[in-house]
Amino acid sequence: MSLAFILMGRDGRARRGRLETAHGPVETPAFMPVGTAATVKAMTANAVRATGAEMVLANTYHLMLRPGAERIERFGGLHRFMDWPGPILTDSGGFQMMSLNALRTIGEAGVAFRSHVDGSAHELTPERAVEIQRMLDADVSMVLDECTPFPADEKTAAESMRRSMRWAARCKDAFARRPGYGLFGIVQGGIYESLRRESAEALRAIGFDGYAIGGLAVGEGQATMFRVLDFTALCLPEDRPRYLMGVGKPADLVGAVARGIDLFDCVLPTRSGRTEQAFTRFGPVTLSNARHRDDPRPLDARCACPACRKHSRAYFHHLINTKEILGAMLLTWHNLHYYQELMAAMRAAIDAGRLAQFADAFAADQAQGDIPPL
Amino acid sequence: MSLAFILMGRDGRARRGRLETAHGPVETPAFMPVGTAATVKAMTANAVRATGAEMVLANTYHLMLRPGAERIERFGGLHRFMDWPGPILTDSGGFQMMSLNALRTIGEAGVAFRSHVDGSAHELTPERAVEIQRMLDADVSMVLDECTPFPADEKTAAESMRRSMRWAARCKDAFARRPGYGLFGIVQGGIYESLRRESAEALRAIGFDGYAIGGLAVGEGQATMFRVLDFTALCLPEDRPRYLMGVGKPADLVGAVARGIDLFDCVLPTRSGRTEQAFTRFGPVTLSNARHRDDPRPLDARCACPACRKHSRAYFHHLINTKEILGAMLLTWHNLHYYQELMAAMRAAIDAGRLAQFADAFAADQAQGDIPPL
Repeated sequence: MSLAFILMGRDGRARRGRLETAHGPVETPAFMPVGTAATVKAMTANAVRATGAEMVLANTYHLMLRPGAERIERFGGLHRFMDWPGPILTDSGGFQMMSLNALRTIGEAGVAFRSHVDGSAHELTPERAVEIQRMLDADVSMVLDECTPFPADEKTAAESMRRSMRWAARCKDAFARRPGYGLFGIVQGGIYESLRRESAEALRAIGFDGYAIGGLAVGEGQATMFRVLDFTALCLPEDRPRYLMGVGKPADLVGAVARGIDLFDCVLPTRSGRTEQAFTRFGPVTLSNARHRDDPRPLDARCACPACRKHSRAYFHHLINTKEILGAMLLTWHNLHYYQELMAAMRAAIDAGRLAQFADAFAADQAQGDIPPL
Repeated sequence: MSLAFILMGRDGRARRGRLETAHGPVETPAFMPVGTAATVKAMTANAVRATGAEMVLANTYHLMLRPGAERIERFGGLHRFMDWPGPILTDSGGFQMMSLNALRTIGEAGVAFRSHVDGSAHELTPERAVEIQRMLDADVSMVLDECTPFPADEKTAAESMRRSMRWAARCKDAFARRPGYGLFGIVQGGIYESLRRESAEALRAIGFDGYAIGGLAVGEGQATMFRVLDFTALCLPEDRPRYLMGVGKPADLVGAVARGIDLFDCVLPTRSGRTEQAFTRFGPVTLSNARHRDDPRPLDARCACPACRKHSRAYFHHLINTKEILGAMLLTWHNLHYYQELMAAMRAAIDAGRLAQFADAFAADQAQGDIPPL
C-alpha cells in the first residue's frame, strides 16, 4: 500500500489507529476541518493547528475553479499555498458539482458543468479528478463519484452506485502510487444494504488505500445513518482506514466512532461559527439569544480555547449583534477546538477500553441543554 | 497631573516620549489601532499585541449604543470586556454623531441624536461623555467637541470652536482625577491660524493632561494639514502629549511626527485590510489586481508579519478573489504591523537624531510604487 495505516487498538467495534501520510501522521479517529478554498474559513493555519487538528480537507471543485489546479501546482502544491504543512485530503469534486450546479450533465465519461462563479464550461472525468488532486499534492485523494440523492428508489441508487464503481476503477488506473500518498474509494448505495455490500465488494476488488462511506447525512436521519453504518462497516477491510464523508454533529461522531469509523469531515463547526452557533459540553448554544447579553460566564467553563479563556458570553453576544468579524473568528476557533477535544477524548476512551461509558456520559451532558441562566 | 508624560528627547521639532497610563506605558510617537466596537476589526487582541501596538482607541458613540456603557462597566470595564489589558483611549462620540447621524440637533447643552442602529433617541452632553468614558474605564478620555466641517467660513469655524471650548471646560469640571487616567482637550478652529491659537489658549487655560488636534484630514489636503500643524503645535505646551486625531496615511504620520505630534489613530490600516489594500515599503498595493495572480513573492519581502513570512501575493489575491474572511484577517494584520514598524522606525530615528534622513529615505521608497512585476 502507498499509505500506511496502523490499527493500534479496538474497543468493541471502535478502532484506534494512525494514518501515516507524506506530510506526517494522523491519530484516528480524527476530525478534519474543512478548508474549502485553501483556507479554513475565518482561521489562520496556525490557529487551526492550535486546535489540535492534524489533517484538513480541501475541495477539488472550488480549487479547480479558483485559483486553478495548475496554478497551485506551480506554487508547489496546496500545503505551501495555504501554509498547512500537515496532511491534506481532497474530495473529488463530485459532491459540489451536484449541490452547486443546476447546469450539469452526467454521463458515463464524467460530468460536464458550468462554474457557479462565472458560468465557464468545465468537465470532470475520473481521470481528471485524480490529475487535479495530484496537482494539488493531496496526501489522500478521493475517487470521483456521484453522491446519490436522498430519497432514491433502489433502482436509481443501484444505477448511480454502479456508475460510481466504474469510475472508481478508472480512478485507480489513473492514480500514480507514491509513498505516503493514497487513494480512497467511496461506498455508495443509498440506504440499501444489498447495494452497500455490492459497492464495498466492488471497491475491495479494485483495492484502495482507504474506504469512505458517501451519500449519508443527506436527510436520512441519524437512526438510518447508524443502521447503514452498521451493515456497511462489516463489509470493509479491517486493515484500512474508514472515512465517513460530510459528518457531522457531535453525537453523530460519537455514534459513528462506536461503529468503527476512523475519519470525519464536516463544515458544521466552521459554518456554525459564522452563524452564531457554538458547540458545548451541554449542547449547542445560540449566542445571538438575548439570554447571553448580560452573562459574564465563558461559553464553556471547561474549554481551554482562547475564546473561552478570555471572553464572556456577553462579549460573544455583542460581537454577533454588531456583526463583527471577530465573532466569526472566535466562535469558529471554539467550535473547531470543541471538535478536536471530542475526538481526543474518544481516542483516549478507546485506548482505555471505555468508549461505551464515554458515550453515555457524553449523551447525558448533551441532554442538559446549556447551563441554567444566571 | 493625573497622567505622566515623560519627554525623553527631541530631533528638530519631533519628540520622543513615554505616556504612563493606569494600564501601562506607551512609547511615543505612537499609532493606536482603532477598536471601534470593542474589537479591532478582524483581529484577535493577541494579534493586535503581536503587531507591537501598545494602546488602542475605542469609540464612545458605538459603545454607548451597543452594548451600552453601563453594561461594560458591570463587566469590569472595556479592557476586560475586549481582552486588551493595555492602555485604551476613547473618543468622546462627537465625530461619529456628526458623520453617522443625519437626525441630530446640536445646542449649547449638547447633542440630541437618534441611533443609526435602531432609531432610538439619545443625548450626549459634555458631562455624559465624560461619565461614559469613566464607565468604559478609558485611560485617556477625550472632551466632547464638534468636529468643524470642511470647508467652513471663519465665522462658522469660530462659533463651532468656541462652543467646543465651553464644552471642554464642562468636561474638565466633570472629570474625576485618578492616577494614570487623563483627559485630553481638542483644538478646533478649522484652517484658521487665529482660531487655532485662540482654541489652544482656551484649552491651556482650562488645563488638560494632553492636547489633541481635531478637525483635520477631513478634505483639506496634506499641505494644508501640515500648515495647520505647523502653527498649531507652536501653541501647545511642550510637556504634554499631542494627539492628531483620525490621521492618517503613512506619509501623513511621517510629516506630522516631524511637526511634533506624539499620538495618532486612524481606521486606514484596518479598513484597507478589509478592502484589498496593503501598505508596503514601496507604497500601497491593491491585491485584487490581476498582476498578483501568479506572483509567488511576499507582499513585502522585508516585513516580518505572519502574512508576509508565510504567504504569496498570489494567495492574497486568491483570498480576496474568493471573498474569504482570512484575506481581511491577514491583510489587516499586515497593515497594522506595517504601521507599528513605521512608528518604531521613527522612534529609533528620533533617538538617533536622524528623523530628517529617515523621512527622505521613506519618501524615496514610497515614490517607487511597488516592486516591478515578475
